[in-house]
Amino acid sequence: MPDIAWLNGEFTSLAAAKVSINDRGYVFADGIYEVICTREGRPFLMEAHLRRFENSAAGLNLPLPDNYRDWPDIIAAGLEKAGYPETMIYIQMTRGVMPRRHDVPHPLTPQVVMTFRPKPRVDPAALASGQAAITVEEIRWSHCFLKTIALLPNVLMKQQARDQGCYEAIFVADDGEVHEGTAANVFFVRDGILYTPELGNYLLPGITRQYIIDQAPAIGLQVVSKRCLLPEMLAADEVFVTSTTVDAMPIVKIDNQPIGDGKPGPVTRKVAALFQ
Amino acid sequence: MPDIAWLNGEFTSLAAAKVSINDRGYVFADGIYEVICTREGRPFLMEAHLRRFENSAAGLNLPLPDNYRDWPDIIAAGLEKAGYPETMIYIQMTRGVMPRRHDVPHPLTPQVVMTFRPKPRVDPAALASGQAAITVEEIRWSHCFLKTIALLPNVLMKQQARDQGCYEAIFVADDGEVHEGTAANVFFVRDGILYTPELGNYLLPGITRQYIIDQAPAIGLQVVSKRCLLPEMLAADEVFVTSTTVDAMPIVKIDNQPIGDGKPGPVTRKVAALFQ
Repeated sequence: MPDIAWLNGEFTSLAAAKVSINDRGYVFADGIYEVICTREGRPFLMEAHLRRFENSAAGLNLPLPDNYRDWPDIIAAGLEKAGYPETMIYIQMTRGVMPRRHDVPHPLTPQVVMTFRPKPRVDPAALASGQAAITVEEIRWSHCFLKTIALLPNVLMKQQARDQGCYEAIFVADDGEVHEGTAANVFFVRDGILYTPELGNYLLPGITRQYIIDQAPAIGLQVVSKRCLLPEMLAADEVFVTSTTVDAMPIVKIDNQPIGDGKPGPVTRKVAALFQ
Repeated sequence: MPDIAWLNGEFTSLAAAKVSINDRGYVFADGIYEVICTREGRPFLMEAHLRRFENSAAGLNLPLPDNYRDWPDIIAAGLEKAGYPETMIYIQMTRGVMPRRHDVPHPLTPQVVMTFRPKPRVDPAALASGQAAITVEEIRWSHCFLKTIALLPNVLMKQQARDQGCYEAIFVADDGEVHEGTAANVFFVRDGILYTPELGNYLLPGITRQYIIDQAPAIGLQVVSKRCLLPEMLAADEVFVTSTTVDAMPIVKIDNQPIGDGKPGPVTRKVAALFQ
């Protein structure tokens, strides 16, 4: 079976899944999303993802659809139909379809789409050697704690990283405060302790980030969530970025400057092992 | 004929115009747009709108499509098919369709849609009495000079204005600098002189704004484009907001505080007359 989609109650092929050009997601970025990956065939940390989804919906004053309680069943059905060993589940909800105008005069029915694609394979060579990153100016809006589809700044900066042969771009405020990557949270290691930027306006509460914070004590690691500055990160022994699709990716160079000895370090490996 | 759309080379009904859920406009807000209205049946200031479109495209590193030079002809054909006395033309271009990932590994064909709908009628009573506005925190990204579809903050703040019974929300920075409305530029009048916030990161170069600046000398008005602060605006004799669909709308109350004598003033009327 090819990649599939679930659109407003019906399963279809991904290629056939289409929405009106009047969908407010298309003309206003008026929507939210989640990405959930399976582990051993089952959605990993799905409850946490759905809780974050509810929080994003509340932030946009978006009602949850009537069938929201059935989503775990719908997701299970989609996984079965897709039949991949491991699946990346993408869920997007927009405010619905109406002729384009900024305000929302009437209650609308949210438009929901889910897609089921193979979980992207993380290149083992990239994990083994680590990756390079650049830092970029924080150009995003101040509600980055909501997981919305208004991702244009992320896209532009991710592409800027790729154009420079780098894996990720890390947003840093004018005052040097480190926020996050375009699609990942940031951790660094100093003297064996893990540090990660604290929650705030410019940080998505990453599910993988929280999982690491929760699991760290069990593997003998201390995590400090705090305001982090760029010089601290650049002077760290190790840096890595975390996301649902990649887990933990070592960052061994930032702005052309090696981190630590320029190789993935033991703490990063210990954290990555949490996901194996 | 119902409202119509032009989608990648074909005219269709607006209701039938659909795009893939993998359109990067839908999942990333990776696109730009313009709104052009007709005046006496002909697109008003179309050249200026298309120049701004080209500038937005360059800002996103979006190539213009091969048929870009034919757009004036396509627009003319759409106007004829629609057959409305006055038409609102909406043009949106996104980076194209591909399986969702942040970076853009391959050249894509941009996806273009145009829609042709009746030009919205501006309520004469609203013009005669003027409208109320609220000021809101500047929460948007720092590239507001590009006309992108990442409009979620504008939508949220427009709705906040409407929820408070107001017409528009005006973004004001932490330091009191007045930027613009969610879908309009701002002007105010003091001692017969027109003031408007100067171009910058948080200001869309409005076509109507520029038209007023260009035409003002001919109707005996001086316009000063400068950094404007909220107290100046609140102490003004008159305030109005400008946009392609509404031209010039008097704002007679901001944050529940009357502007001047709380009625549309003579300078606003003089400017509005430019469009009649």
